[in-house]
Amino acid sequence: MAMKTVSTWKSHGGVQGVYTHASDVCGCDMTFAVFVPPQAAEGPLPVLWYLSGLTCTHANVMEKGEYRRLAAELGIIIVCPDTSPRGENVPDDKDDWQFGSGAGFYVDATVEPYARNYRMYTYITEELPALIAREFPADMERQSIFGHSMGGHGALTIALKHPDRYRSCSAFAPIVEPTTAGWSSKAFERYLGSDQDSWRKYDACALVKDGARFSEFLIDQGAADSFLDEGLRPWLFEECCREAGISLTLNMREGYDHSYYFISTFMNDHLRWHHQRLTA
Amino acid sequence: MAMKTVSTWKSHGGVQGVYTHASDVCGCDMTFAVFVPPQAAEGPLPVLWYLSGLTCTHANVMEKGEYRRLAAELGIIIVCPDTSPRGENVPDDKDDWQFGSGAGFYVDATVEPYARNYRMYTYITEELPALIAREFPADMERQSIFGHSMGGHGALTIALKHPDRYRSCSAFAPIVEPTTAGWSSKAFERYLGSDQDSWRKYDACALVKDGARFSEFLIDQGAADSFLDEGLRPWLFEECCREAGISLTLNMREGYDHSYYFISTFMNDHLRWHHQRLTA
Repeated sequence: MAMKTVSTWKSHGGVQGVYTHASDVCGCDMTFAVFVPPQAAEGPLPVLWYLSGLTCTHANVMEKGEYRRLAAELGIIIVCPDTSPRGENVPDDKDDWQFGSGAGFYVDATVEPYARNYRMYTYITEELPALIAREFPADMERQSIFGHSMGGHGALTIALKHPDRYRSCSAFAPIVEPTTAGWSSKAFERYLGSDQDSWRKYDACALVKDGARFSEFLIDQGAADSFLDEGLRPWLFEECCREAGISLTLNMREGYDHSYYFISTFMNDHLRWHHQRLTA
Repeated sequence: MAMKTVSTWKSHGGVQGVYTHASDVCGCDMTFAVFVPPQAAEGPLPVLWYLSGLTCTHANVMEKGEYRRLAAELGIIIVCPDTSPRGENVPDDKDDWQFGSGAGFYVDATVEPYARNYRMYTYITEELPALIAREFPADMERQSIFGHSMGGHGALTIALKHPDRYRSCSAFAPIVEPTTAGWSSKAFERYLGSDQDSWRKYDACALVKDGARFSEFLIDQGAADSFLDEGLRPWLFEECCREAGISLTLNMREGYDHSYYFISTFMNDHLRWHHQRLTA
Protein backbone atom coordinates (compact mmCIF):
# COMPACT_ATOMS: atom_id res chain seq x y z
CA MET A 1 0.00 0.00 0.00
CA ALA A 2 3.04 2.30 -0.37
CA MET A 3 2.19 5.47 -2.22
CA LYS A 4 4.07 6.78 -5.24
CA THR A 5 3.96 10.34 -6.53
CA VAL A 6 3.15 10.53 -10.24
CA SER A 7 3.11 14.34 -10.63
CA THR A 8 2.93 17.48 -8.54
CA TRP A 9 2.23 21.03 -9.61
CA LYS A 10 2.25 24.16 -7.53
CA SER A 11 -1.11 25.84 -7.94
CA HIS A 12 -2.81 28.67 -6.05
CA GLY A 13 -0.05 28.49 -3.46
CA GLY A 14 -0.73 24.82 -2.70
CA VAL A 15 0.19 21.53 -4.33
CA GLN A 16 -1.96 19.60 -6.78
CA GLY A 17 -0.61 16.07 -6.90
CA VAL A 18 -1.38 12.77 -8.58
CA TYR A 19 -0.47 9.58 -6.74
CA THR A 20 -0.69 5.80 -7.18
CA HIS A 21 -0.63 2.89 -4.82
CA ALA A 22 -1.11 -0.86 -5.00
CA SER A 23 -4.66 -1.31 -3.73
CA ASP A 24 -5.29 -4.48 -1.76
CA VAL A 25 -9.02 -3.89 -1.90
CA CYS A 26 -9.20 -3.46 -5.68
CA GLY A 27 -6.38 -5.83 -6.54
CA CYS A 28 -4.68 -3.35 -8.86
CA ASP A 29 -2.79 -0.08 -8.84
CA MET A 30 -5.12 2.83 -8.14
CA THR A 31 -4.49 6.46 -9.06
CA PHE A 32 -5.94 9.49 -7.29
CA ALA A 33 -5.47 13.26 -7.07
CA VAL A 34 -5.08 15.38 -3.94
CA PHE A 35 -4.92 19.16 -3.62
CA VAL A 36 -3.18 20.35 -0.47
CA PRO A 37 -3.66 24.08 0.22
CA PRO A 38 -0.91 26.32 1.58
CA GLN A 39 -2.39 26.36 5.11
CA ALA A 40 -1.21 22.76 5.52
CA ALA A 41 2.10 24.22 6.73
CA GLU A 42 0.27 25.30 9.89
CA GLY A 43 -1.46 22.03 10.76
CA PRO A 44 -3.92 19.37 9.63
CA LEU A 45 -6.76 20.50 7.39
CA PRO A 46 -10.30 19.26 6.75
CA VAL A 47 -10.81 16.88 3.84
CA LEU A 48 -13.45 17.13 1.12
CA TRP A 49 -13.93 14.04 -1.06
CA TYR A 50 -15.04 14.51 -4.67
CA LEU A 51 -16.41 11.41 -6.41
CA SER A 52 -16.51 11.58 -10.20
CA GLY A 53 -19.02 10.35 -12.75
CA LEU A 54 -19.15 7.72 -15.48
CA THR A 55 -16.14 7.57 -17.86
CA CYS A 56 -14.08 9.86 -15.60
CA THR A 57 -10.76 9.29 -13.91
CA HIS A 58 -9.25 11.44 -11.13
CA ALA A 59 -8.17 13.85 -13.89
CA ASN A 60 -11.47 15.29 -15.10
CA VAL A 61 -12.32 17.31 -12.03
CA MET A 62 -8.65 18.05 -11.38
CA GLU A 63 -8.39 19.73 -14.78
CA LYS A 64 -11.88 21.17 -15.22
CA GLY A 65 -13.47 21.44 -11.78
CA GLU A 66 -11.96 24.84 -10.86
CA TYR A 67 -11.83 24.02 -7.15
CA ARG A 68 -8.27 25.07 -6.33
CA ARG A 69 -8.61 28.86 -5.98
CA LEU A 70 -11.28 28.69 -3.29
CA ALA A 71 -9.98 25.51 -1.64
CA ALA A 72 -6.64 27.30 -1.24
CA GLU A 73 -8.39 30.31 0.26
CA LEU A 74 -10.55 28.27 2.64
CA GLY A 75 -7.88 25.71 3.54
CA ILE A 76 -9.56 22.47 2.47
CA ILE A 77 -7.80 19.35 1.17
CA ILE A 78 -9.60 18.00 -1.93
CA VAL A 79 -9.31 14.26 -2.65
CA CYS A 80 -10.35 13.02 -6.11
CA PRO A 81 -10.31 9.22 -6.49
CA ASP A 82 -10.66 7.24 -9.68
CA THR A 83 -14.07 5.78 -10.55
CA SER A 84 -13.15 2.09 -10.91
CA PRO A 85 -10.32 -0.40 -10.75
CA ARG A 86 -8.23 -0.52 -13.92
CA GLY A 87 -5.52 -2.62 -15.50
CA GLU A 88 -4.81 -5.55 -17.74
CA ASN A 89 -5.86 -8.05 -15.09
CA VAL A 90 -9.12 -6.28 -14.24
CA PRO A 91 -12.16 -7.69 -16.08
CA ASP A 92 -13.89 -5.06 -18.18
CA ASP A 93 -16.47 -4.55 -20.91
CA LYS A 94 -14.83 -2.15 -23.32
CA ASP A 95 -17.99 -1.68 -25.39
CA ASP A 96 -20.09 -0.46 -22.45
CA TRP A 97 -19.31 2.96 -20.95
CA GLN A 98 -21.84 2.26 -18.19
CA PHE A 99 -20.03 -0.79 -16.83
CA GLY A 100 -16.48 -1.77 -15.90
CA SER A 101 -13.66 0.75 -16.31
CA GLY A 102 -14.86 4.23 -15.41
CA ALA A 103 -18.13 2.82 -14.06
CA GLY A 104 -17.48 1.28 -10.65
CA PHE A 105 -20.69 2.80 -9.20
CA TYR A 106 -19.13 2.86 -5.73
CA VAL A 107 -20.38 -0.66 -4.92
CA ASP A 108 -18.63 -3.82 -3.72
CA ALA A 109 -19.33 -6.35 -6.46
CA THR A 110 -20.39 -9.81 -5.35
CA VAL A 111 -20.61 -11.49 -8.76
CA GLU A 112 -17.59 -13.09 -10.45
CA PRO A 113 -15.43 -12.17 -12.27
CA TYR A 114 -16.00 -8.64 -10.88
CA ALA A 115 -16.02 -9.37 -7.16
CA ARG A 116 -12.23 -9.45 -6.90
CA ASN A 117 -11.58 -5.93 -8.21
CA TYR A 118 -14.79 -3.90 -8.31
CA ARG A 119 -14.87 -2.96 -4.64
CA MET A 120 -15.04 0.80 -4.90
CA TYR A 121 -17.29 1.10 -1.83
CA THR A 122 -14.69 -0.36 0.50
CA TYR A 123 -11.91 1.39 -1.38
CA ILE A 124 -13.49 4.83 -0.91
CA THR A 125 -14.67 4.28 2.65
CA GLU A 126 -11.75 2.32 4.12
CA GLU A 127 -8.54 1.81 2.16
CA LEU A 128 -8.10 5.24 0.61
CA PRO A 129 -9.07 7.16 3.78
CA ALA A 130 -6.41 5.19 5.69
CA LEU A 131 -3.83 6.12 3.06
CA ILE A 132 -4.89 9.79 3.05
CA ALA A 133 -4.69 9.90 6.85
CA ARG A 134 -1.18 8.47 6.78
CA GLU A 135 0.33 10.38 3.85
CA PHE A 136 -1.30 13.84 3.93
CA PRO A 137 -1.78 16.61 6.53
CA ALA A 138 -5.43 15.66 6.88
CA ASP A 139 -7.70 16.10 9.89
CA MET A 140 -9.82 12.98 9.43
CA GLU A 141 -12.18 14.16 12.17
CA ARG A 142 -13.36 16.77 9.66
CA GLN A 143 -14.44 15.09 6.43
CA SER A 144 -17.16 15.93 3.93
CA ILE A 145 -18.10 14.41 0.60
CA PHE A 146 -19.57 15.45 -2.73
CA GLY A 147 -19.63 14.27 -6.31
CA HIS A 148 -21.13 14.42 -9.78
CA SER A 149 -23.65 12.11 -11.45
CA MET A 150 -22.50 8.56 -10.63
CA GLY A 151 -20.22 10.26 -8.10
CA GLY A 152 -23.19 12.15 -6.70
CA HIS A 153 -24.80 8.77 -6.17
CA GLY A 154 -21.60 7.66 -4.46
CA ALA A 155 -21.53 10.70 -2.19
CA LEU A 156 -25.20 10.46 -1.15
CA THR A 157 -25.11 6.72 -0.43
CA ILE A 158 -21.79 6.80 1.39
CA ALA A 159 -22.91 9.74 3.53
CA LEU A 160 -26.22 8.04 4.35
CA LYS A 161 -24.28 5.02 5.59
CA HIS A 162 -21.77 7.11 7.57
CA PRO A 163 -23.77 9.98 9.06
CA ASP A 164 -21.25 10.41 11.88
CA ARG A 165 -18.15 10.42 9.69
CA TYR A 166 -19.02 13.12 7.15
CA ARG A 167 -19.96 16.58 8.33
CA SER A 168 -21.75 17.40 5.10
CA CYS A 169 -22.73 15.95 1.73
CA SER A 170 -23.67 17.58 -1.56
CA ALA A 171 -23.96 16.61 -5.20
CA PHE A 172 -24.04 17.92 -8.75
CA ALA A 173 -26.67 16.14 -10.85
CA PRO A 174 -26.61 12.90 -8.83
CA ILE A 175 -28.13 9.58 -9.85
CA VAL A 176 -30.51 9.39 -6.91
CA GLU A 177 -32.19 6.05 -7.63
CA PRO A 178 -29.67 3.94 -9.58
CA THR A 179 -31.61 0.69 -9.03
CA THR A 180 -34.34 1.90 -11.40
CA ALA A 181 -32.36 4.11 -13.83
CA GLY A 182 -31.49 2.52 -17.17
CA TRP A 183 -27.83 3.50 -17.16
CA SER A 184 -27.16 1.99 -13.73
CA SER A 185 -29.56 -0.90 -13.12
CA LYS A 186 -27.84 -3.08 -15.73
CA ALA A 187 -24.50 -2.49 -14.05
CA PHE A 188 -26.00 -3.22 -10.63
CA GLU A 189 -27.23 -6.59 -11.92
CA ARG A 190 -23.82 -7.49 -13.28
CA TYR A 191 -21.98 -6.36 -10.13
CA LEU A 192 -24.49 -7.51 -7.51
CA GLY A 193 -26.62 -10.24 -9.06
CA SER A 194 -30.33 -10.51 -9.66
CA ASP A 195 -31.47 -10.21 -6.03
CA GLN A 196 -32.60 -6.60 -6.09
CA ASP A 197 -32.81 -6.39 -2.31
CA SER A 198 -29.00 -6.47 -2.28
CA TRP A 199 -28.97 -3.33 -4.45
CA ARG A 200 -30.83 -1.13 -1.98
CA LYS A 201 -27.82 -0.28 0.19
CA TYR A 202 -26.31 1.40 -2.88
CA ASP A 203 -29.36 3.50 -3.72
CA ALA A 204 -29.91 6.86 -2.02
CA CYS A 205 -33.70 6.78 -2.31
CA ALA A 206 -33.92 3.20 -1.08
CA LEU A 207 -31.56 3.90 1.81
CA VAL A 208 -33.74 6.78 3.03
CA LYS A 209 -36.89 4.67 2.64
CA ASP A 210 -35.16 1.92 4.62
CA GLY A 211 -34.40 4.30 7.45
CA ALA A 212 -30.97 5.80 6.75
CA ARG A 213 -30.64 9.47 7.75
CA PHE A 214 -28.23 12.36 7.20
CA SER A 215 -28.30 15.88 8.58
CA GLU A 216 -28.99 17.71 5.29
CA PHE A 217 -28.14 17.67 1.60
CA LEU A 218 -27.36 20.25 -1.10
CA ILE A 219 -27.97 19.34 -4.75
CA ASP A 220 -27.42 21.45 -7.86
CA GLN A 221 -29.01 20.16 -11.04
CA GLY A 222 -28.92 21.61 -14.55
CA ALA A 223 -32.42 22.01 -15.93
CA ALA A 224 -31.10 21.45 -19.47
CA ASP A 225 -29.25 18.26 -18.48
CA SER A 226 -30.00 15.64 -21.16
CA PHE A 227 -29.89 12.88 -18.52
CA LEU A 228 -32.38 14.59 -16.21
CA ASP A 229 -35.60 12.74 -16.90
CA GLU A 230 -34.38 9.21 -17.40
CA GLY A 231 -31.18 8.94 -15.40
CA LEU A 232 -31.13 11.55 -12.65
CA ARG A 233 -34.69 12.47 -11.50
CA PRO A 234 -33.79 14.49 -8.38
CA TRP A 235 -37.49 14.83 -7.58
CA LEU A 236 -37.47 11.19 -6.45
CA PHE A 237 -34.89 12.02 -3.78
CA GLU A 238 -36.72 15.24 -2.92
CA GLU A 239 -39.83 13.23 -2.15
CA CYS A 240 -37.89 10.69 -0.06
CA CYS A 241 -36.23 13.46 1.94
CA ARG A 242 -39.52 15.25 2.49
CA GLU A 243 -41.19 12.11 3.78
CA ALA A 244 -38.21 11.32 6.00
CA GLY A 245 -37.88 14.86 7.32
CA ILE A 246 -34.37 15.31 5.89
CA SER A 247 -33.45 18.84 4.86
CA LEU A 248 -32.63 19.05 1.14
CA THR A 249 -31.76 22.16 -0.85
CA LEU A 250 -32.35 21.32 -4.51
CA ASN A 251 -31.35 24.07 -6.94
CA MET A 252 -32.61 23.60 -10.49
CA ARG A 253 -30.29 25.64 -12.72
CA GLU A 254 -31.92 26.97 -15.86
CA GLY A 255 -29.95 26.36 -19.07
CA TYR A 256 -27.18 24.27 -17.52
CA ASP A 257 -26.27 20.80 -18.78
CA HIS A 258 -24.34 17.83 -17.34
CA SER A 259 -20.83 19.07 -18.15
CA TYR A 260 -17.95 20.53 -16.17
CA TYR A 261 -19.05 23.95 -17.45
CA PHE A 262 -22.03 23.44 -15.14
CA ILE A 263 -20.03 21.91 -12.28
CA SER A 264 -17.37 24.63 -12.29
CA THR A 265 -20.07 27.31 -12.22
CA PHE A 266 -21.45 26.07 -8.90
CA MET A 267 -18.24 24.61 -7.45
CA ASN A 268 -17.61 27.63 -5.22
CA ASP A 269 -21.14 27.47 -3.77
CA HIS A 270 -20.51 23.86 -2.74
CA LEU A 271 -17.03 24.55 -1.37
CA ARG A 272 -18.35 27.38 0.82
CA TRP A 273 -21.27 25.25 2.00
CA HIS A 274 -18.98 22.40 3.02
CA HIS A 275 -16.46 24.77 4.58
CA GLN A 276 -19.13 26.24 6.86
CA ARG A 277 -20.01 22.78 8.09
CA LEU A 278 -16.40 21.56 8.32
CA THR A 279 -15.45 24.49 10.53
CA ALA A 280 -18.68 24.90 12.53
CA MET B 1 -16.41 32.90 -44.01
CA ALA B 2 -19.82 31.87 -42.60
CA MET B 3 -19.54 30.72 -39.01
CA LYS B 4 -20.90 27.45 -37.66
CA THR B 5 -21.57 26.66 -34.03
CA VAL B 6 -19.91 23.42 -32.89
CA SER B 7 -20.94 23.49 -29.21
CA THR B 8 -22.28 25.87 -26.61
CA TRP B 9 -22.44 25.47 -22.87
CA LYS B 10 -23.99 27.76 -20.31
CA SER B 11 -21.31 28.61 -17.76
CA HIS B 12 -21.13 31.22 -15.01
CA GLY B 13 -24.27 32.81 -16.42
CA GLY B 14 -22.71 33.33 -19.86
CA VAL B 15 -22.12 31.14 -22.89
CA GLN B 16 -18.92 29.26 -23.67
CA GLY B 17 -19.04 28.36 -27.36
CA VAL B 18 -16.88 26.63 -29.93
CA TYR B 19 -17.21 27.73 -33.55
CA THR B 20 -15.73 26.94 -36.96
CA HIS B 21 -15.49 28.85 -40.21
CA ALA B 22 -13.85 28.40 -43.59
CA SER B 23 -10.81 30.64 -43.33
CA ASP B 24 -9.77 32.36 -46.56
CA VAL B 25 -6.50 33.43 -44.98
CA CYS B 26 -5.48 29.95 -43.79
CA GLY B 27 -7.11 28.02 -46.63
CA CYS B 28 -8.81 25.59 -44.25
CA ASP B 29 -11.57 25.38 -41.66
CA MET B 30 -10.52 27.07 -38.43
CA THR B 31 -11.97 26.42 -34.98
CA PHE B 32 -12.03 28.88 -32.09
CA ALA B 33 -13.68 29.36 -28.68
CA VAL B 34 -15.52 32.43 -27.39
CA PHE B 35 -16.91 33.11 -23.93
CA VAL B 36 -19.68 35.70 -23.86
CA PRO B 37 -20.57 36.89 -20.36
CA PRO B 38 -24.14 37.60 -19.23
CA GLN B 39 -23.71 41.39 -19.49
CA ALA B 40 -23.79 41.02 -23.30
CA ALA B 41 -27.58 41.30 -23.03
CA GLU B 42 -27.07 44.97 -22.15
CA GLY B 43 -24.71 45.98 -24.97
CA PRO B 44 -21.34 45.36 -26.62
CA LEU B 45 -18.51 44.23 -24.35
CA PRO B 46 -14.72 44.58 -24.47
CA VAL B 47 -12.75 41.73 -26.02
CA LEU B 48 -9.71 39.99 -24.56
CA TRP B 49 -7.75 37.72 -26.92
CA TYR B 50 -5.92 34.71 -25.48
CA LEU B 51 -3.27 33.13 -27.72
CA SER B 52 -2.23 29.60 -26.78
CA GLY B 53 1.10 27.81 -26.78
CA LEU B 54 2.74 24.98 -28.71
CA THR B 55 0.65 21.79 -29.18
CA CYS B 56 -2.53 23.56 -27.98
CA THR B 57 -5.85 24.07 -29.71
CA HIS B 58 -8.59 26.47 -28.62
CA ALA B 59 -9.62 23.81 -26.08
CA ASN B 60 -6.72 23.82 -23.63
CA VAL B 61 -7.36 27.22 -22.09
CA MET B 62 -11.12 26.79 -22.48
CA GLU B 63 -10.98 23.68 -20.30
CA LYS B 64 -8.11 24.51 -17.95
CA GLY B 65 -7.65 28.29 -17.95
CA GLU B 66 -10.30 29.06 -15.31
CA TYR B 67 -11.15 32.45 -16.84
CA ARG B 68 -14.95 32.25 -16.94
CA ARG B 69 -15.90 33.10 -13.34
CA LEU B 70 -14.11 36.44 -13.32
CA ALA B 71 -14.75 37.25 -17.00
CA ALA B 72 -18.46 36.80 -16.25
CA GLU B 73 -18.16 39.09 -13.24
CA LEU B 74 -16.19 41.78 -15.08
CA GLY B 75 -18.07 41.52 -18.37
CA ILE B 76 -15.26 40.66 -20.79
CA ILE B 77 -15.57 38.55 -23.94
CA ILE B 78 -12.71 36.03 -24.15
CA VAL B 79 -11.62 34.83 -27.60
CA CYS B 80 -9.38 31.74 -27.82
CA PRO B 81 -8.16 30.94 -31.36
CA ASP B 82 -6.40 27.82 -32.52
CA THR B 83 -2.60 27.87 -32.84
CA SER B 84 -2.21 26.83 -36.48
CA PRO B 85 -4.07 25.86 -39.63
CA ARG B 86 -5.13 22.19 -39.66
CA GLY B 87 -6.53 19.64 -42.05
CA GLU B 88 -5.72 16.99 -44.60
CA ASN B 89 -4.68 19.56 -47.19
CA VAL B 90 -2.46 21.52 -44.81
CA PRO B 91 1.24 20.57 -45.00
CA ASP B 92 2.57 19.41 -41.66
CA ASP B 93 5.48 17.68 -39.95
CA LYS B 94 3.87 15.14 -37.65
CA ASP B 95 7.15 14.22 -35.98
CA ASP B 96 7.93 17.76 -34.84
CA TRP B 97 5.78 19.34 -32.11
CA GLN B 98 7.60 22.63 -32.63
CA PHE B 99 6.52 23.02 -36.27
CA GLY B 100 3.33 22.72 -38.31
CA SER B 101 0.08 21.74 -36.59
CA GLY B 102 -0.13 23.35 -33.16
CA ALA B 103 2.94 25.47 -33.90
CA GLY B 104 1.93 28.33 -36.18
CA PHE B 105 4.02 30.85 -34.16
CA TYR B 106 1.67 33.67 -35.21
CA VAL B 107 3.69 34.43 -38.38
CA ASP B 108 2.73 34.67 -42.05
CA ALA B 109 4.87 32.01 -43.72
CA THR B 110 6.61 32.99 -46.95
CA VAL B 111 8.24 29.66 -47.80
CA GLU B 112 6.40 26.96 -49.77
CA PRO B 113 4.62 24.68 -49.13
CA TYR B 114 3.71 26.54 -45.91
CA ALA B 115 2.95 29.99 -47.31
CA ARG B 116 -0.55 29.08 -48.45
CA ASN B 117 -1.87 28.02 -45.04
CA TYR B 118 0.46 29.13 -42.24
CA ARG B 119 -0.71 32.74 -42.04
CA MET B 120 -1.66 32.95 -38.38
CA TYR B 121 -0.48 36.58 -38.11
CA THR B 122 -3.03 37.82 -40.64
CA TYR B 123 -5.62 35.40 -39.34
CA ILE B 124 -5.35 36.70 -35.76
CA THR B 125 -5.04 40.37 -36.66
CA GLU B 126 -7.49 40.65 -39.58
CA GLU B 127 -9.75 37.75 -40.52
CA LEU B 128 -10.80 36.54 -37.08
CA PRO B 129 -11.35 40.05 -35.63
CA ALA B 130 -13.68 40.81 -38.57
CA LEU B 131 -15.62 37.64 -37.85
CA ILE B 132 -15.79 38.36 -34.11
CA ALA B 133 -16.99 41.91 -34.80
CA ARG B 134 -19.75 40.62 -37.05
CA GLU B 135 -20.94 37.59 -35.06
CA PHE B 136 -20.55 38.55 -31.40
CA PRO B 137 -21.65 41.45 -29.16
CA ALA B 138 -18.10 42.82 -29.18
CA ASP B 139 -16.95 46.39 -28.75
CA MET B 140 -13.92 46.26 -31.06
CA GLU B 141 -12.82 49.70 -29.84
CA ARG B 142 -11.91 47.99 -26.59
CA GLN B 143 -9.56 45.07 -27.26
CA SER B 144 -6.68 43.64 -25.26
CA ILE B 145 -4.48 40.62 -25.82
CA PHE B 146 -2.60 38.03 -23.78
CA GLY B 147 -1.22 34.53 -24.19
CA HIS B 148 1.01 31.72 -22.97
CA SER B 149 4.46 30.66 -24.15
CA MET B 150 4.29 30.68 -27.98
CA GLY B 151 1.02 32.56 -27.49
CA GLY B 152 2.78 35.01 -25.18
CA HIS B 153 5.18 35.64 -28.04
CA GLY B 154 2.14 36.13 -30.28
CA ALA B 155 0.54 38.60 -27.87
CA LEU B 156 3.69 40.68 -27.34
CA THR B 157 4.58 40.92 -31.04
CA ILE B 158 1.03 41.64 -32.20
CA ALA B 159 0.60 44.33 -29.54
CA LEU B 160 3.93 45.94 -30.43
CA LYS B 161 2.75 46.18 -34.05
CA HIS B 162 -0.69 47.52 -33.11
CA PRO B 163 -0.15 49.85 -30.15
CA ASP B 164 -3.32 51.78 -30.98
CA ARG B 165 -5.59 48.78 -31.35
CA TYR B 166 -4.95 46.94 -28.06
CA ARG B 167 -5.46 48.74 -24.78
CA SER B 168 -3.22 46.31 -22.91
CA CYS B 169 -1.01 43.27 -23.36
CA SER B 170 0.20 40.62 -20.94
CA ALA B 171 1.73 37.17 -21.07
CA PHE B 172 2.32 33.99 -19.10
CA ALA B 173 5.82 32.60 -19.68
CA PRO B 174 6.25 34.13 -23.16
CA ILE B 175 8.91 33.25 -25.71
CA VAL B 176 10.39 36.76 -25.83
CA GLU B 177 13.15 36.22 -28.40
CA PRO B 178 12.02 33.38 -30.68
CA THR B 179 14.62 34.12 -33.34
CA THR B 180 17.38 32.87 -31.02
CA ALA B 181 15.53 30.19 -29.00
CA GLY B 182 16.08 26.60 -30.07
CA TRP B 183 12.43 25.59 -30.10
CA SER B 184 11.38 28.47 -32.36
CA SER B 185 14.31 29.47 -34.60
CA LYS B 186 14.09 26.24 -36.60
CA ALA B 187 10.40 26.86 -37.24
CA PHE B 188 11.12 30.46 -38.21
CA GLU B 189 13.62 29.27 -40.82
CA ARG B 190 11.12 26.82 -42.30
CA TYR B 191 8.26 29.35 -42.34
CA LEU B 192 10.23 32.47 -43.28
CA GLY B 193 13.43 31.36 -45.01
CA SER B 194 17.05 31.92 -44.16
CA ASP B 195 17.04 35.74 -44.30
CA GLN B 196 16.99 36.43 -40.58
CA ASP B 197 16.11 40.08 -41.08
CA SER B 198 12.65 38.92 -42.12
CA TRP B 199 12.25 37.21 -38.75
CA ARG B 200 12.63 40.37 -36.67
CA LYS B 201 9.05 41.58 -37.07
CA TYR B 202 7.95 38.39 -35.28
CA ASP B 203 10.32 38.76 -32.32
CA ALA B 204 9.34 40.92 -29.33
CA CYS B 205 12.91 41.80 -28.37
CA ALA B 206 13.90 42.65 -31.96
CA LEU B 207 10.76 44.71 -32.46
CA VAL B 208 11.55 46.85 -29.41
CA LYS B 209 15.17 47.22 -30.51
CA ASP B 210 13.93 48.27 -33.95
CA GLY B 211 11.75 50.98 -32.47
CA ALA B 212 8.33 49.43 -31.79
CA ARG B 213 6.65 50.66 -28.60
CA PHE B 214 3.70 49.73 -26.39
CA SER B 215 2.33 51.43 -23.31
CA GLU B 216 3.26 48.77 -20.76
CA PHE B 217 3.46 45.00 -20.28
CA LEU B 218 2.64 42.50 -17.54
CA ILE B 219 4.43 39.13 -17.51
CA ASP B 220 4.11 36.26 -15.05
CA GLN B 221 6.79 33.60 -15.24
CA GLY B 222 7.18 30.42 -13.21
CA ALA B 223 10.62 30.23 -11.63
CA ALA B 224 10.50 26.41 -11.83
CA ASP B 225 9.53 26.41 -15.52
CA SER B 226 11.72 23.83 -17.26
CA PHE B 227 11.78 25.97 -20.42
CA LEU B 228 12.93 29.11 -18.61
CA ASP B 229 16.65 29.25 -19.38
CA GLU B 230 16.75 28.02 -22.94
CA GLY B 231 13.37 28.89 -24.41
CA LEU B 232 11.81 31.76 -22.49
CA ARG B 233 14.47 34.04 -20.93
CA PRO B 234 12.22 36.94 -19.86
CA TRP B 235 15.29 38.87 -18.74
CA LEU B 236 16.09 39.53 -22.40
CA PHE B 237 12.79 41.36 -22.82
CA GLU B 238 13.23 43.08 -19.47
CA GLU B 239 16.50 44.56 -20.71
CA CYS B 240 14.96 45.65 -24.03
CA CYS B 241 12.06 47.34 -22.23
CA ARG B 242 14.38 49.09 -19.79
CA GLU B 243 16.53 50.47 -22.60
CA ALA B 244 13.46 51.56 -24.54
CA GLY B 245 11.72 53.10 -21.54
CA ILE B 246 8.76 50.71 -21.74
CA SER B 247 7.10 49.84 -18.44
CA LEU B 248 7.26 46.10 -17.73
CA THR B 249 6.03 44.29 -14.62
CA LEU B 250 7.78 40.91 -14.55
CA ASN B 251 6.65 38.62 -11.74
CA MET B 252 8.88 35.61 -11.16
CA ARG B 253 6.71 33.02 -9.39
CA GLU B 254 8.62 30.69 -7.10
CA GLY B 255 7.86 27.00 -7.57
CA TYR B 256 5.53 27.37 -10.57
CA ASP B 257 6.10 25.52 -13.83
CA HIS B 258 4.86 25.95 -17.43
CA SER B 259 1.48 24.25 -17.01
CA TYR B 260 -2.12 25.40 -16.77
CA TYR B 261 -1.83 24.90 -13.00
CA PHE B 262 0.45 27.94 -13.16
CA ILE B 263 -1.65 29.86 -15.69
CA SER B 264 -4.92 29.35 -13.81
CA THR B 265 -3.29 30.53 -10.59
CA PHE B 266 -2.51 33.95 -12.05
CA MET B 267 -5.40 34.18 -14.54
CA ASN B 268 -7.46 36.44 -12.29
CA ASP B 269 -4.57 38.88 -11.82
CA HIS B 270 -4.30 39.24 -15.58
CA LEU B 271 -8.06 39.56 -16.11
CA ARG B 272 -8.30 42.34 -13.51
CA TRP B 273 -5.27 44.11 -15.00
CA HIS B 274 -6.76 44.07 -18.49
CA HIS B 275 -10.21 45.03 -17.21
CA GLN B 276 -8.81 48.15 -15.57
CA ARG B 277 -7.28 49.22 -18.88
CA LEU B 278 -10.26 48.19 -21.02
CA THR B 279 -12.60 50.31 -18.92
CA ALA B 280 -10.31 53.23 -18.08
